[in-house]
Amino acid sequence: MARIVQKFGGTSVGTIDRIRKVAEWAVKTRAEGHEVIVVVSAMSGETNRLVALAKELHPNPFSAEYDMLLASGEQVSCALTALAINSLAPGSAQALLGNQIGIRTDSMFSKARILSIDSDVLQATLDRKQIPVIAGFQGVDEKGQITTLGRGGSDTTAVAIAIAAKADRCEIYTDVDGVYTTDPRICPEARRIKSVTYDEMLEMANLGSKVLQIRSVELAAKYQMPVHVLSSMSLESLSSYQLREGTCVEAKSNQSVTHSGPSMEEALVTAIASDVNQVKVTLKHVPKRTDSLAKVFTALAKAGIVVDVIIQEALSETTQALSFTIGKEDFLTAKAELGRMQTGGFAEMTIQDTQDLAKVSIIGVGMQNHPGVAAKMFEVLAHEDIAIELVSTSEIKVSCLIAKTSNQKAVQALHRAFGLSA
Amino acid sequence: MARIVQKFGGTSVGTIDRIRKVAEWAVKTRAEGHEVIVVVSAMSGETNRLVALAKELHPNPFSAEYDMLLASGEQVSCALTALAINSLAPGSAQALLGNQIGIRTDSMFSKARILSIDSDVLQATLDRKQIPVIAGFQGVDEKGQITTLGRGGSDTTAVAIAIAAKADRCEIYTDVDGVYTTDPRICPEARRIKSVTYDEMLEMANLGSKVLQIRSVELAAKYQMPVHVLSSMSLESLSSYQLREGTCVEAKSNQSVTHSGPSMEEALVTAIASDVNQVKVTLKHVPKRTDSLAKVFTALAKAGIVVDVIIQEALSETTQALSFTIGKEDFLTAKAELGRMQTGGFAEMTIQDTQDLAKVSIIGVGMQNHPGVAAKMFEVLAHEDIAIELVSTSEIKVSCLIAKTSNQKAVQALHRAFGLSA
Repeated sequence: MARIVQKFGGTSVGTIDRIRKVAEWAVKTRAEGHEVIVVVSAMSGETNRLVALAKELHPNPFSAEYDMLLASGEQVSCALTALAINSLAPGSAQALLGNQIGIRTDSMFSKARILSIDSDVLQATLDRKQIPVIAGFQGVDEKGQITTLGRGGSDTTAVAIAIAAKADRCEIYTDVDGVYTTDPRICPEARRIKSVTYDEMLEMANLGSKVLQIRSVELAAKYQMPVHVLSSMSLESLSSYQLREGTCVEAKSNQSVTHSGPSMEEALVTAIASDVNQVKVTLKHVPKRTDSLAKVFTALAKAGIVVDVIIQEALSETTQALSFTIGKEDFLTAKAELGRMQTGGFAEMTIQDTQDLAKVSIIGVGMQNHPGVAAKMFEVLAHEDIAIELVSTSEIKVSCLIAKTSNQKAVQALHRAFGLSA
Repeated sequence: MARIVQKFGGTSVGTIDRIRKVAEWAVKTRAEGHEVIVVVSAMSGETNRLVALAKELHPNPFSAEYDMLLASGEQVSCALTALAINSLAPGSAQALLGNQIGIRTDSMFSKARILSIDSDVLQATLDRKQIPVIAGFQGVDEKGQITTLGRGGSDTTAVAIAIAAKADRCEIYTDVDGVYTTDPRICPEARRIKSVTYDEMLEMANLGSKVLQIRSVELAAKYQMPVHVLSSMSLESLSSYQLREGTCVEAKSNQSVTHSGPSMEEALVTAIASDVNQVKVTLKHVPKRTDSLAKVFTALAKAGIVVDVIIQEALSETTQALSFTIGKEDFLTAKAELGRMQTGGFAEMTIQDTQDLAKVSIIGVGMQNHPGVAAKMFEVLAHEDIAIELVSTSEIKVSCLIAKTSNQKAVQALHRAFGLSA
């Protein structure tokens, strides 16, 4: 008997037939005596369709209206999933939107952050022996406007709901059966990881492993909520609910050492991540003042833009150059913000951008104590004739910005070189 | 300088291109110094698509979930229309859903009735010189659940908003250029009516003229709000806003007498209406008690079903037969309600139904004082060899239930016989 949050991604609710399977699974889980809370994403393709409509009408559509538009996708799948459950077991599901379940957020449209969840409605629904079916991705700000949590935000909804409901675990059903040593579409030799720590998962999510939204992992880590990543593809083959193999993201890794490296002392590279959605921005002739950096990055932060690798370089006695990477989707907003700064005291600053970069990273605990790991990475890339644009390192990762076209070659070579291929 | 509500139907916002035209029209109207409030339906086809999805998942989907599902259609068009206006004139539109504009309704899902509208948000938006862009068709009940107002409910939203905002008029933009003497698709000789009274329009809407939802006309009549029905098809050809020809629904008809009838004294038939969406239900062996009728029709009314023509007939000393017509969409719900009565004291009652009937009606003020009018109608139908199943009359209409397949023939013959063809 457990209280379980089950979150289903876009592919898992992508057709009427799949929604029916999701409904059956939730009902089977309840039949085993568990309390079930369902969270759903929009039907696959729907969010992209809505984004395309908005972009046809407005060059930079990000606004309250944009969030209202996108939130309709989860509204549809939420209502349909509840209808499907009610068709199997009349009256046993209640559909609930972000505002109904009291998911309060700030007003940062398109990437709002959850401030609080009102667990009363959730508890009342469970007390009535109903399955709350919750629209992921959305919340409501203090003015009552619909907000959305950014791409993959339904993961964050699911973890937040699990925490608010004091659930035993959060199950994330998706179109892959877990987290892999790298993206299997890029490198067919990729293997599933059975258990991974929050920290490792954070680096992997951040670097584009795309299985879980990074914020959902941060949240899970903060409250130590176990998150199981599972495939929704063959749920119907099981006659009753049981927790299946996948990847468990938890506080302590239960990963067995299976690497083919020569010694136990060698730094453990757990995974290779890559992200082909990067833009490098270079600002030249930035005044060399102590507050210049703060001004630039505060302006970007206020617009809700996450800046990744940052490189600073002196150009002359009075000016400097700044290079950094951001996600492609933030590019227009960033350019507008930086443009405003040009008219506000940074008159000489010029903006250069290089699109279509990939960031490829190696991840593993204890990497920093093995400087040879970064060197080996550079060597592998050099051997493949791949030029490196920018480098950044942290305690458990080394990242290189390279041309997008070289991404696949880089990932495959690194996966093999660090002994991750079977 | 007027305060104008402009409501755009599904075809008018059916594509990105048409939404752009709607945005231009609203901006042109405001440029002439008017205050504009926009109300939109779902993009054409969207509601049908959502209904089909729900019906695949649940045999009788009508519930809170169903309304949540359908309301997403207007959420999308509302957000897109506001984005389109903001792209023409930055910051000049605000998208508002039913709950945000405070459209409170009862909890009769799929056919909720408006209880009140909070005009504060509306006024505050207008005070900021913004165009409120409102999602039609939807409201919110006292529990915060989304409700919808039934097919064509956006008309009712528009009129209700016009009343709450004390607007000068409500303009309904649709894919026809006004109200016709009959449906031009059924009878090519149909002509546009320039002005019609609320009462005449009520009968026409009720009988299936389909240009305006009947409840919107009832509401307009109650508050004497002028409603202009206009075509949205060639808005872009005008460089500036001007009120164009269409049909004005208002307290006093300004219709000129243009009929080709032989004398001014002849009863004025204004229009021929028809509705092919009727089901006739016959109940046999209903106990002949004084409360039988009340029990049957109270049960149907509680389920929100509008019953039209009612015929009562004695079968024996102790039982009677009851025939009545309802809309096809209410048939499953009605059957369930009547089934419950069979187990609750009406054990002998049997339910028969005839689907695929059409109701064809002639409408005109002063008809009741000319008994010859009904007789002429029966004569015309007899001459066309059309059998009449049921008849009902009111002060300004006579309706006959006939086979659905005879509908077109009947409408064309009546349109000619009553001198409505040019």
